[in-house]
Amino acid sequence: MSNTPQWIMIGGEGPESYHQNSSYQRALLEAAKEKMNEAISAKLTLNLITDRFTIVDFGYNIEFQVFFNDFSNNDFNTLFQGLPPERRYYSAGVPGSFLDRVLPKKSFHIGIISYAFHFTSKVPKGITNRNSPLWNKDMHCTGINKAVKKAYLDQYSVDTKNLLDARAEELVPGGLFLIFGSCMRDGVKMSETCKGVPMDCLGASLNDLAQQVHI
Amino acid sequence: MSNTPQWIMIGGEGPESYHQNSSYQRALLEAAKEKMNEAISAKLTLNLITDRFTIVDFGYNIEFQVFFNDFSNNDFNTLFQGLPPERRYYSAGVPGSFLDRVLPKKSFHIGIISYAFHFTSKVPKGITNRNSPLWNKDMHCTGINKAVKKAYLDQYSVDTKNLLDARAEELVPGGLFLIFGSCMRDGVKMSETCKGVPMDCLGASLNDLAQQVHI
Repeated sequence: MSNTPQWIMIGGEGPESYHQNSSYQRALLEAAKEKMNEAISAKLTLNLITDRFTIVDFGYNIEFQVFFNDFSNNDFNTLFQGLPPERRYYSAGVPGSFLDRVLPKKSFHIGIISYAFHFTSKVPKGITNRNSPLWNKDMHCTGINKAVKKAYLDQYSVDTKNLLDARAEELVPGGLFLIFGSCMRDGVKMSETCKGVPMDCLGASLNDLAQQVHI
Repeated sequence: MSNTPQWIMIGGEGPESYHQNSSYQRALLEAAKEKMNEAISAKLTLNLITDRFTIVDFGYNIEFQVFFNDFSNNDFNTLFQGLPPERRYYSAGVPGSFLDRVLPKKSFHIGIISYAFHFTSKVPKGITNRNSPLWNKDMHCTGINKAVKKAYLDQYSVDTKNLLDARAEELVPGGLFLIFGSCMRDGVKMSETCKGVPMDCLGASLNDLAQQVHI
């Protein structure tokens, strides 16, 4: 897949593993449970639910299949071994970048992306190059340099278009695609938030340290 | 899953890995390619093919999705990382024993099992117990002790029934399930084949060795 990153998440179940460091994703899902149920009740097209109910009327049970998608170089083994044996759904791992198509057309009814919609597929060109007008001297990309902000926004626009186009084809008509994440109101900079301020302090300290080494 | 074995296949790509030791499965698939194409042309229900052709008429391309099934403790990571990036099919790994249901009803059109249909899920009770009438003193289970043969046959009957019942539910009506493996004509014992004879010689040698240690 063209979008497979060079870096890999740490596998296994150790203290630095992806498995032990997805608390944001889990917390969001737990916090959003009620909203999720509301959305499913209100927005999932009625025809689709009726179809399913028709199947039940004929004596069938509804069967659930859950697809877990991640980059092909992530640790699916730990995921599979951690699935509860008593689970009442069929499961499958789908390797590939979520910026590409990873499933056939019309193949899922409800999709969830939890705390991953904010990623860009790469750092825009020039951001780490001191001689580029795009060199980012800040900790954040919504700081002083407007060109940096634009470069990230351009990259993000390309990435999200790919992601949403791919999901639109994979989603069954009338299905739901739920996007969970944290975001900010228009006009608020990351550097103005309670999360951004300490990051900027850290950035300033590192800059000072680097200056002293040069002297 | 109830049928997950305690032993695991060796992961990775090393000399003793499952990845490097599935030449039987590969050879069979290559040898059977022509027969497979014949079966697909002749046996795959025409209505189903017509349905697909209808989709093509409307300007869609047929999309293929391949599910790879294996026990949840096998190495899916190596499989996923080895899939060709230029592949023209969607892929998914399905963890679970093929003796259980692993996919929803009517979810695949063509299934393949290559050199795995001969496995039993466990060694029948008593086979390794010296004091049991089922103790198997031979290298093979179709040798001298008729009770051993029956115990294996009983276990195999249970296992294959589970396997075929599960696939029958998962298969789309009119689809194909292809079983590749090597077998023997009725009445021929494994101990009479060119593969069985050297195994029996080895068995006899080990028995002789064990006798000498006892003296």
